[in-house]
Amino acid sequence: MSTAGSSAEKSSARSINPHISVDCVIFGFSTNQLKVLLIERAYTDESGNRHRDLKLPGDFITPDEHLDRAAARILEELTGLHDIYLRQFEVFGHPNRISRKIDLDWLLETTGLQIHRVVTTAYYALINISESNRDFAIKNNARWIHISRIPPLAFDHLEIIRRGLKHLQEALRNEPVGFELLPAKFTIRQLQTLYEVILDCKLDNRNFRKKVLGTRYLVQLDEKQAGVPHKPAYFYRFDRNTYMRDRKDYIGFNF
Amino acid sequence: MSTAGSSAEKSSARSINPHISVDCVIFGFSTNQLKVLLIERAYTDESGNRHRDLKLPGDFITPDEHLDRAAARILEELTGLHDIYLRQFEVFGHPNRISRKIDLDWLLETTGLQIHRVVTTAYYALINISESNRDFAIKNNARWIHISRIPPLAFDHLEIIRRGLKHLQEALRNEPVGFELLPAKFTIRQLQTLYEVILDCKLDNRNFRKKVLGTRYLVQLDEKQAGVPHKPAYFYRFDRNTYMRDRKDYIGFNF
Repeated sequence: MSTAGSSAEKSSARSINPHISVDCVIFGFSTNQLKVLLIERAYTDESGNRHRDLKLPGDFITPDEHLDRAAARILEELTGLHDIYLRQFEVFGHPNRISRKIDLDWLLETTGLQIHRVVTTAYYALINISESNRDFAIKNNARWIHISRIPPLAFDHLEIIRRGLKHLQEALRNEPVGFELLPAKFTIRQLQTLYEVILDCKLDNRNFRKKVLGTRYLVQLDEKQAGVPHKPAYFYRFDRNTYMRDRKDYIGFNF
Repeated sequence: MSTAGSSAEKSSARSINPHISVDCVIFGFSTNQLKVLLIERAYTDESGNRHRDLKLPGDFITPDEHLDRAAARILEELTGLHDIYLRQFEVFGHPNRISRKIDLDWLLETTGLQIHRVVTTAYYALINISESNRDFAIKNNARWIHISRIPPLAFDHLEIIRRGLKHLQEALRNEPVGFELLPAKFTIRQLQTLYEVILDCKLDNRNFRKKVLGTRYLVQLDEKQAGVPHKPAYFYRFDRNTYMRDRKDYIGFNF
């Protein structure tokens, strides 16, 4: 039995609060693509046939568990990673969010309980895929799926991803969250591609470069790209301390 | 019995989900002050004496109630106002957030249930006090309390207000939410004061004016202040349509 797919499957063996869950939209970025980590869910239909579909990593909380810690636990069980950027973004509590028969049946099968309403707190996590342990995720029936190729999912998980992406886009416009998805050193071109992919638009190269280098948070390194067919570009790093210092004095109206 | 203070008090008479609640931090702005609308809670101590303290307007949800709708219901029951700016900002689910005896006793007294853990979804609302019906709020044991003079509150409500203010400050830096707290027409000076009060800082007049008028969303009206001892200033209004159009093309890195 997998660890990752089993967060909920293990629930029957321990005490849970069957009204409250957390779900994690784990965004990863690699080879210029935005992906979401999903796990396989197995269920049995009325004729006794087994099926599989995909769901977000998530779980009920235990009676004494802090929500943030539950989200971190799920993330760690699935990826083996600690200290990942994790942000609570929205609560999903629609009275009908659990109404499909296969979802009700799956909950009964995995928890032993008749559960009709669960309010779930959604988090998004940001992972630089190349630095995470891909093998671990694969071992646990977890799969990175391209953001625009996500199939129908369990429960309202497609809607949760859609909203999570919206929150990520908003954050990207206003905060330096994008660096969580990049390696520690990156080129301006890589940064621009990240923005273009997540915001799903084309940005003007010159303007982007000017804006980016106009902040004081990007520090040019002495190192350049190697083995590229074009003129090698300098690497940069994000200086969080400078950002935090300047941020204090930042007053909006750039909105 | 009051309507406002009674959201939870009425719970015993109807079916509730005793695990999940919503709480509203209702921010109001008037005479250059940021205030929060709080309601009186009555409780009986061990010696049978009645006491009163303050709490956020909030309630358990009913079994079939949507979270957003529960928040709007609480707001309307309390103020009589519809269509108020209301935003979900955070979930509070610490396992120990309900641990003080008076809080446990009050829940027992008002719901008839032994309740030990409630996960609450917090919303903030923004109200221009001068345009709201102050009498209604007063009738219902609700009181506007200055943000820096809030006494100890029930449950973790002081912490919820603290976090709500933080979210409001962040929103103010990045989005035109401030206009919700102002009359439809306002002077640049009024707008600046709103920013200074909420962000708790002093802004440079010239810079602020320049930034504000640099956006295309502020439209100068033909009307000026009347009966002021200084040179009367022009009124402005916020043009949401222009904002929404321009926002689509806005890419961050002004952070």
